[in-house]
Parts: sequence; structure tokens; C-alpha cells
Amino acid sequence: MEKYIEYFKGDKFAAYNGIQLLECRPGYAKTSVKIGPNHHNGAGVVHGGLLFTLADFAFAVAVNSYGKVTLSVATSMSYFDKCTEGVITAEAHELSCSNKLIHCDVFVRNESGVLLANFKGTAYITSKEIDF
Amino acid sequence: MEKYIEYFKGDKFAAYNGIQLLECRPGYAKTSVKIGPNHHNGAGVVHGGLLFTLADFAFAVAVNSYGKVTLSVATSMSYFDKCTEGVITAEAHELSCSNKLIHCDVFVRNESGVLLANFKGTAYITSKEIDF
Amino acid sequence: MEKYIEYFKGDKFAAYNGIQLLECRPGYAKTSVKIGPNHHNGAGVVHGGLLFTLADFAFAVAVNSYGKVTLSVATSMSYFDKCTEGVITAEAHELSCSNKLIHCDVFVRNESGVLLANFKGTAYITSKEIDF
Amino acid sequence: MEKYIEYFKGDKFAAYNGIQLLECRPGYAKTSVKIGPNHHNGAGVVHGGLLFTLADFAFAVAVNSYGKVTLSVATSMSYFDKCTEGVITAEAHELSCSNKLIHCDVFVRNESGVLLANFKGTAYITSKEIDF
Repeated sequence: MEKYIEYFKGDKFAAYNGIQLLECRPGYAKTSVKIGPNHHNGAGVVHGGLLFTLADFAFAVAVNSYGKVTLSVATSMSYFDKCTEGVITAEAHELSCSNKLIHCDVFVRNESGVLLANFKGTAYITSKEIDF
Repeated sequence: MEKYIEYFKGDKFAAYNGIQLLECRPGYAKTSVKIGPNHHNGAGVVHGGLLFTLADFAFAVAVNSYGKVTLSVATSMSYFDKCTEGVITAEAHELSCSNKLIHCDVFVRNESGVLLANFKGTAYITSKEIDF
Repeated sequence: MEKYIEYFKGDKFAAYNGIQLLECRPGYAKTSVKIGPNHHNGAGVVHGGLLFTLADFAFAVAVNSYGKVTLSVATSMSYFDKCTEGVITAEAHELSCSNKLIHCDVFVRNESGVLLANFKGTAYITSKEIDF
Repeated sequence: MEKYIEYFKGDKFAAYNGIQLLECRPGYAKTSVKIGPNHHNGAGVVHGGLLFTLADFAFAVAVNSYGKVTLSVATSMSYFDKCTEGVITAEAHELSCSNKLIHCDVFVRNESGVLLANFKGTAYITSKEIDF
């Protein structure tokens, strides 16, 4: 797991926004972020783009952890509750994986375990190996 | 339009990530970002989370420009092409608007007009006025 | 539950296509269909529109079982595996419910429990009572 | 176009539900249905599953018209307005097509041109030729 985590630390957009990778294995990943002042939108709540990025990063790690370069092709996200502070986590689980396509479900929760959002993603598995 | 643009500049997450609001009116908005080193993912291309945030911000502005606090409830995003640099824009257009729900289509393009991604969003219109 | 099931039997499109409602309670429903020759597409496999309708009917029942007229506003569906025959079931579970919006996750499986598709739906809860 | 239309008439689920293919070419298709009593849901309006099937059939034809077996992998649909009768049409347009993936946008309208729903679909292009 160490080498994967090192590799995925190369995600500059996630790092710049304070998002951390906590765990990963093929078909699973967990990310988190501590909310700060740069994470809010104009209405003073956490930006949907941050929640999406948190979920999308967990998704990207889960689908790339098999070792092939795997590209996101379609995603959807539903928002259930707002949040303004604290630590938020996203857990990505594989729903299905064939030769060429992989699908994940990602749940985003606040510190109390309240479900804030759900993300679904489909990715295309290329034949190119990741150079971890 | 000036007061709307001033108001939406309060979006700290968009500002922190270099996203600008170029135009807005009820049911329409256009945003842009100049790609820099903090926008890339681990594979060296622009992060899906940045493209999503660019589109989501245009969507949020378009749906809030009627003057009522309007909350995103469900979104989907499809990715067509990667990009690594230059200026990217997102244009949100209203598809439909009822009393309580508004739907938009957002197209994300690079400087040459190549379509990079498509975002769709549905938002719920509250009865609360925005204090521009 | 009897009166709900009687009420939802009024869904003519579901009935015409052989879809049955097996169980329902607020926030949950289970539907099934036995595959026949009218359910196939041009490639000889079960039509995505049938799987969608099976899932959408479970979703509609789950969200209307609280007793208010509740309207679908946005859905997404991902397909994992094809199928050609047998009995297929869909189970809808509520993910989140507020005053005005309800979100469900629906899983579609074949007789062996293999996951064929996943559906997500968001619906708007009106103030109108259903006349069961 | 004749041979394509003949081929796609093999879609039994579409035919059983009264859905017709009006036009098709690579990356485009148009379907229609005349609403009848078997198309309604329990609330007396046209079933979301019928609108989805109408859109999904247009999508399937548009993406398969290049001549390779092409499989739907992820779709989303948003509903804007209800309808109870008349002729409904769906038009699928390609948004993007690469070597392996194709994305379409489908608009569903009533006879007066009112937008009832929008469907987006992503499909995977296999290397297998369709035997028209």
C-alpha cells in the first residue's frame, strides 16, 4: 500500500486543496479533508466542487490500484446535506469490474457519520501499466 | 450584472482555485480558469475535480441569478477529452425551470473550442431571497 | 402494505411489461420481472429500458409510500452485466430524505444474485396526499 | 439507412411498447411513440420508464450505426414536464466519439416541441462488427 499512497500523492489538485489519501487497495480507497476557509462557496457552506473532488480522488485511487491506467468516463453526484466545518471523508467501493470497465460507489460523510453526498463513477481500463 | 458578479466572487473555493466568473444572467453563466501546476492530477492531466468545479460554479451562478437561494441536488458529468494547459471555459444554459426545480446543461471547452466535458445539474429553488 | 400494493398495481406500463411489485414500505420497495421474448433488444439481450423501468418502478413505490405525491426529477443508471432470461429483481433503498427531496439507490440483480445494474434517483415531495 | 432501420426493428421491447424508429445515421437517431393506455403510471401520466426507453432506443441506434456492436455503460435522465397523451419524440445526437467510447445527448419532446426530458448516455464500442 505504501507505494500506491506515494504514487497518488502526486495528485497536485487534491494536495493543494488539503485532501489526503488515508487507505487504498484494488477496488477501495478512503480520502479525507479538514474543512478550512478556502473550501466554502458564496453561501458560506462547503463547495460541491470540494465534495466532488474528495469523492473523485477516492474513486480514481480505487480504480487505478489494480495497476492499469484507468480513466474516468462518466460520474454522477447527489447532495443530501450541507456542511460547514470539521473533517469529511469519502469511501469508494467497487460495484463491478470487467475487462475494460469498472464502476464504483462513493459515500461522503461528516465526522458524525451523516451522509452528505453519494457519487457514482464509471472508468475505462486502458492496457497501459502504471509506473508506481 | 455587476452586483451578481460581486456577490458570486464570495465563492472562496472557486477563487482559491483560480476560477473566474466571466458572465452571468438568469439561466446563464460562463466561467473560466487558466491551467496552472496546482490543477493537475497524478497522471499529469487536468483533474476531473477542477473541471467539475468550473462547471458546477457556472451552474450555481446560472441557477441563483434569479435571486432565490437555489441548492444543487443532483449532477452528472461525462469526460470526453483530457487537457494539460491553456484556458478552459464552462458555459451553463438553463434547460428547464419550474416553480421549485431548475435544470441546466454545462459544456466545458478548451481554447480551441474542443469539448472536454459535459455537466448536467438539477437544483431546488428555495423561497429565500439572496441578499445581493 | 396491502393497500399500497393495490394502489401501485394501477401502474399500467409496469403491468403491461410483466413487472410485479413484491414488497413495499416507506423508503423501500422490491419489484421483479420474469424475462420473456418481448423484453429483448435487437442484440438479443434484455433491453436497458426494461431494467430501467423495473428499477424506476421500485424507486417510485419507495418514494411514494410515505403517502405524498412524489415526482422523479433526476435519475442515473449504470449497466454492469447483460442478461437474457430468468427472473430479475430490483430493490430500492432510501439514501436520504428531507422535507422536499428524497434520494434512493436501486440495485438490479439476476436470480443468482449477480448485480446487473445500479440506478440512483432523486424525487421531489409535493404537499399533495396520495388517495390510497 | 433502410438496412439499419430493418436491423433495429429487431428491438422487440421497443416494438412491443409501440416505439418506432424514424431516422438514423451514424451519431444520430430519432424515435417516436404515440401515447396509449398502456404507457401510463399509477398517477395517470406517461411512465418515466417509457420516456427512458424511447430515449435509450434512439441512443442505442445512434451509437450502433457506425457498424460496431456498442454497449450502453452509463446513462442519466432528468424529467422536466409530465405528459399524458399525443406523440412524443426523442432525438439522439453524438457529443463525442473516441476509439472506444461514445457519448450522446438525447432530448425528448411532445408534439408542441415542449422539452419533457433530457437523457445522456455513454457507450463502449466493441471491435465486433454488426451483421446488418
